[in-house]
Amino acid sequence: MKEIDLIYSLLKEASALVCEQYARRDQVGVTTKSNPNDLLTEADLAVQDLIVEGVANCFPGDAIAAEERDFSHLPDDREARCWVIDPIDGTQNFVRGLFPMFGVSIAFVRGGEAVAAGVALPISGDCFLAEYGSGAYRDGARLRVSNVGSISVARVEVDFSGPPERPGTLRCASRIICAAGQIRCACATVVALCQIAAGEMDAFVHVALNPWDYAAAQLIVEEAGGRATRLDGTPLRVFDERKGALLSNGLIHDELLSLADRT
Amino acid sequence: MKEIDLIYSLLKEASALVCEQYARRDQVGVTTKSNPNDLLTEADLAVQDLIVEGVANCFPGDAIAAEERDFSHLPDDREARCWVIDPIDGTQNFVRGLFPMFGVSIAFVRGGEAVAAGVALPISGDCFLAEYGSGAYRDGARLRVSNVGSISVARVEVDFSGPPERPGTLRCASRIICAAGQIRCACATVVALCQIAAGEMDAFVHVALNPWDYAAAQLIVEEAGGRATRLDGTPLRVFDERKGALLSNGLIHDELLSLADRT
Repeated sequence: MKEIDLIYSLLKEASALVCEQYARRDQVGVTTKSNPNDLLTEADLAVQDLIVEGVANCFPGDAIAAEERDFSHLPDDREARCWVIDPIDGTQNFVRGLFPMFGVSIAFVRGGEAVAAGVALPISGDCFLAEYGSGAYRDGARLRVSNVGSISVARVEVDFSGPPERPGTLRCASRIICAAGQIRCACATVVALCQIAAGEMDAFVHVALNPWDYAAAQLIVEEAGGRATRLDGTPLRVFDERKGALLSNGLIHDELLSLADRT
Repeated sequence: MKEIDLIYSLLKEASALVCEQYARRDQVGVTTKSNPNDLLTEADLAVQDLIVEGVANCFPGDAIAAEERDFSHLPDDREARCWVIDPIDGTQNFVRGLFPMFGVSIAFVRGGEAVAAGVALPISGDCFLAEYGSGAYRDGARLRVSNVGSISVARVEVDFSGPPERPGTLRCASRIICAAGQIRCACATVVALCQIAAGEMDAFVHVALNPWDYAAAQLIVEEAGGRATRLDGTPLRVFDERKGALLSNGLIHDELLSLADRT
């Protein structure tokens, strides 16, 4: 089985499970992790188990890095074959959301770069897929980033993340916030990045981020013609252990970099 | 016909029209109003025409204030019977949104206060209704605001509005942004306010706002047990020609007022 085929198949299974859990979310157990706003639900764990088991069955020797529990660390060998998984990105929205802005994310990484990737948005039913060099697709339709060429009319997702990241976000992004045409913040990285790939959003700013938040969606954005860097303009790599990310349609990337305050 | 029955009936018709226009949104004509980010579509006008005509047929003597074109001003007599209409709140999301966060809003105002109100979210199919003193409902189910009692775990919608409002928003809301559990910004006032009424959001901050943005949804929030004021804690009234609004579940309202910078 090709890696992209496994990703697609696991996303379908995972989406069905997420929909089932979402429908009865009032009864899904919720605990907290690093702080009271960092939630972990039984649904996150069940979806992660499903994907981890599927990967281990098909590609038993591969490393796995995933958001929850024992898998929440980078692989020892950063060049090896590794699957990078976020079972539910946007858990807060899953728990309380009127609009279901959360997604399941799976990347297959080799040599430190995602080469196959998929994101499913379970409730809308959208599935985004990309392979390195072969373009990005939503449900079979080729994706292309927007042609918005000025930040003054661009839609920018500023992810305010959790309280610990807020002062840094305000410092870094205030000039971007004042300059952008529209500001959005749904706090679901994979959703915003898929919106960029689909031309429905023009840029995304985050001062932190973990590899499982962007590994898959970065490839989807880049294969749709977009650009991804750290906030200083250096490459965004899956396992470089740095923080901060800027992804865009490419056209407004340099303008955004010049407005981001990195002091 | 009772006013609330007309509201319900017009929301149903308007929702069908919005869904139809949304499905072919690539062909819907778009122009700009006060600035390049302030959009007006053929859909806004068609929906407004439908509602205005429906009101004029049923209650021919009543005043009408609505977001678009000739109706975009307050009634001469602020105490008279008046219908306050936003055909599509969240037009930007209508035009580009992956997640359809926009709504149709109709309030019937008497003596300067909304006494019957409805908001429809066409794509999800949700319809929120409230009458003064009789509670708020979504599709027949009684609504109640959340019981979140601390801003540190609250979900707060900070509406960054358009570029002209950004410096003021950052000034007013920076302490709120740093203190809140989660920050969201979908830039669709009626959606955020209905989320508050449904207990899915805890507060909403905006430094500007027009009467058609909040007239209906304010009543829905209040009838669900929430609280609505200006940013200085004074009452939020439909026709007082002031700017800025804070709506919440009530429990965290004073904490938010103390954090809002009104200088």
